[in-house]
Amino acid sequence: MDTARANMVRAFIRDIWDEGRAELVPDYLAPAYRIAHDPGDPWDGTVLDHPGFQDRLQQSRAPFPDQRFEILSLFENDSSVAVTWFWRATHLGAIAGFPATGRPVTMSGATVYFFDEADRLTGHWQVADRLGVFRQLQSER
Amino acid sequence: MDTARANMVRAFIRDIWDEGRAELVPDYLAPAYRIAHDPGDPWDGTVLDHPGFQDRLQQSRAPFPDQRFEILSLFENDSSVAVTWFWRATHLGAIAGFPATGRPVTMSGATVYFFDEADRLTGHWQVADRLGVFRQLQSER
Repeated sequence: MDTARANMVRAFIRDIWDEGRAELVPDYLAPAYRIAHDPGDPWDGTVLDHPGFQDRLQQSRAPFPDQRFEILSLFENDSSVAVTWFWRATHLGAIAGFPATGRPVTMSGATVYFFDEADRLTGHWQVADRLGVFRQLQSER
Repeated sequence: MDTARANMVRAFIRDIWDEGRAELVPDYLAPAYRIAHDPGDPWDGTVLDHPGFQDRLQQSRAPFPDQRFEILSLFENDSSVAVTWFWRATHLGAIAGFPATGRPVTMSGATVYFFDEADRLTGHWQVADRLGVFRQLQSER
């Protein structure tokens, strides 16, 4: 899939989530970004402005600074783009009560991104296998 | 979205997963159905024939006999259909070490369905918020 919105989502995930380039947030996001559904995410249900999103980005990436998303499949309908993904990172900072373990961790998930008329992102709906992450962090070495 | 495959996925979820009509499994599934990715599902990674799928259906529905899936959004690309969903059920049988609690439980998830040339289902890739379900079953009344 090679539409403007699909390519934008690919670039957003690479620039913002993989590389942590917070200064590019205004290039991708509408002024208000709604986390419509993201169970287990501390910002679930909130609406963020650009500084608020940049703060979420910084806090989310801090425990996993080398994180990388691999997009498995991508879908588009009239109002949104859906991606399924696989995530890999090294656990290098404390999260949810777990001090850094130095372990490689993986997670899978699916995200639906919503757009405004200018093709800026207005929010997302997401589910991720957070139970699998907890099991990786809790397990004995 | 109103294509043959989209409508087939809607009917499959209603007939098979909501209503538990195991006798209709051969109408929907190819002879081999691959659970490509479904972390936390006991059949993750397996390939099932029709009786195997019917057994999975019966075992999966047993703790939640009144379960209902609400399809939130539906996407289609060349090879597959993706659905995001919300699930509601009453916990009426033992699962994963939890005896029946009688509680209402909810879960969200996303599923990608794959097809053969005859538009029969050949498998799925799925992520669900299983951590959220555990928290509902573990919490104090």
